[in-house]
Amino acid sequence: MKISYLDLEKEFLRILRKHGVSDDSAIPCAHEFAETTAYGVVSHGVNRFPVFIGQLDKGEVKPHANPVKVGTFGAIEKWDGQQGIGNLIAKKMMDRAMEIASMQGIGIVALRNTNHWMRGGSYGYQGAKKGFISICWTNSIAVMPAWGAKQCCIGTNPLIIAVPTNPITMVDMSMSMFSYGKLQNYRLAGKALPIDGGFDNEGNYTRDPATIEANKRILPMGYWKGSGLSIVLDMIVTMLSGGLSVSDITKSGSETNVSQIFIAIKPSNEGVTASMQKSLQDIVSYVENAEPCDPNIRPRVPGQEFEKRYRKSMTEGIEVNDSIFEKLKSL
Amino acid sequence: MKISYLDLEKEFLRILRKHGVSDDSAIPCAHEFAETTAYGVVSHGVNRFPVFIGQLDKGEVKPHANPVKVGTFGAIEKWDGQQGIGNLIAKKMMDRAMEIASMQGIGIVALRNTNHWMRGGSYGYQGAKKGFISICWTNSIAVMPAWGAKQCCIGTNPLIIAVPTNPITMVDMSMSMFSYGKLQNYRLAGKALPIDGGFDNEGNYTRDPATIEANKRILPMGYWKGSGLSIVLDMIVTMLSGGLSVSDITKSGSETNVSQIFIAIKPSNEGVTASMQKSLQDIVSYVENAEPCDPNIRPRVPGQEFEKRYRKSMTEGIEVNDSIFEKLKSL
Repeated sequence: MKISYLDLEKEFLRILRKHGVSDDSAIPCAHEFAETTAYGVVSHGVNRFPVFIGQLDKGEVKPHANPVKVGTFGAIEKWDGQQGIGNLIAKKMMDRAMEIASMQGIGIVALRNTNHWMRGGSYGYQGAKKGFISICWTNSIAVMPAWGAKQCCIGTNPLIIAVPTNPITMVDMSMSMFSYGKLQNYRLAGKALPIDGGFDNEGNYTRDPATIEANKRILPMGYWKGSGLSIVLDMIVTMLSGGLSVSDITKSGSETNVSQIFIAIKPSNEGVTASMQKSLQDIVSYVENAEPCDPNIRPRVPGQEFEKRYRKSMTEGIEVNDSIFEKLKSL
Repeated sequence: MKISYLDLEKEFLRILRKHGVSDDSAIPCAHEFAETTAYGVVSHGVNRFPVFIGQLDKGEVKPHANPVKVGTFGAIEKWDGQQGIGNLIAKKMMDRAMEIASMQGIGIVALRNTNHWMRGGSYGYQGAKKGFISICWTNSIAVMPAWGAKQCCIGTNPLIIAVPTNPITMVDMSMSMFSYGKLQNYRLAGKALPIDGGFDNEGNYTRDPATIEANKRILPMGYWKGSGLSIVLDMIVTMLSGGLSVSDITKSGSETNVSQIFIAIKPSNEGVTASMQKSLQDIVSYVENAEPCDPNIRPRVPGQEFEKRYRKSMTEGIEVNDSIFEKLKSL
């Protein structure tokens, strides 16, 4: 079914209030979930909302907790999320990284004891919209085997890098080749994956989503490369935040108290200069004008589709899966 | 054939002197090439040395040029490499990033007009050895199609992230799934690639190295993910350094005047603390002790093999391909 942005936001707010969240947290939180959904990232917007409410009910997410600064070293600050609402805290931390960068060129916030930030791209976008190069990542519970392992021991640890072009260029990449959500979509559609997504039980590459959902031998993006990247990202966030690593989170048994990094870089004292804009536009044109595989599809500059998707959601409403909508109504 | 570290270094020095390089540049440059080879990265050590000499002879590499600082903004410095020797300049820039980080927690050096840095991992290692989290990347000439393109329009833009564990953990990853050097190795050995490495002329995935070497439709690592990452890395380095982008370098017709980024992060005022070391060791153990695919091969923590390789080179000598050695003697 289709629903308007405002009606969806109102529905999120109703549910948050009912689950004991006061308006100072509930209003911005409903807004963040509506925004993420409007940008087309339903997996971390409306579809994830019931899971988030479950975490609230279990007490894993403390809706009125505020992040606290616990240390400073030059342009690096260490914060504790106090197990608050992940997307609200992440937004504050990205704002803080930009404040530091405004003075020192770069700002890093290392955050511990926070909760799932939902769509990581929101924070990259937030920084790039204000003219900052923005880099952030989070760790997670172990859901993927490292290269050479059968057993899950590394996180999807999504990495976001956003650049202040117009529209914004951004990668928002999980370290797994496909998310479990994508595997489910392919399985429900009765389709094979377009490329290998994991190993079967005999250790051969497979494109069968059900096999991978069952044995959890999901492939890192870029095989050994994504596996390595996942490990170093976890190491850095754990070191700088003093928080839990993927190993610690997994041993705790639930994906809470995760650790995150927010980096903002001010491109120059004057922000994004005209000559920078020109260089960036040259890069975009060079990619977009390269001879395409399919004459009807331009080579892709990552993330530039989001503005269009958002405008479409605002004018035409947001498509929400019927069963998810029923679920919302029951909450 | 086998050659000792010192004999190989002496041979590099002889050639550099013969090609007009004075000892203040020739001695450290010979040392860097010997080190890279001893760490087992022959592709960017001894095997690349003749190409480097060719660039010197053509005047693309100016052996006595020194990098010049052209701007500062907080913890970010902008330098111009003056087309000097890539590996010597990169080493200086990483040292400078560490100096800034010692005072401000983090230091970024954005470098333009430099030359190929040979093994990027050298600079990650250099920083991590001194206790800094080290992140660096370079752009390159376009040798890979972007996602959705047939034509080469993005760089391999290797990204290095090194973490001060013992031994050092490091990814040193090109944005292509395989390098052209690897494709050549497989072709010469008469083997197919173990996974898809590019597209054939009909646009199907292929594991045939010769096809990809011919049509240059090499795959980004992680398909669309590596393509996107390559683009944002190029954008950032171009913005911050004010130097040439992949597009500019490609239009210039030769891979010189490239742009690079060096980031050092001091993990705390006291460097790497005991509690950080413990967390890092927990991450390593968690990965290494996960159930392996092959009971005889431990799951891989990236980069930890280099110390062992280096010690082996030092005690047993360095294996150099006969034809490469003949080539050296002729230079």
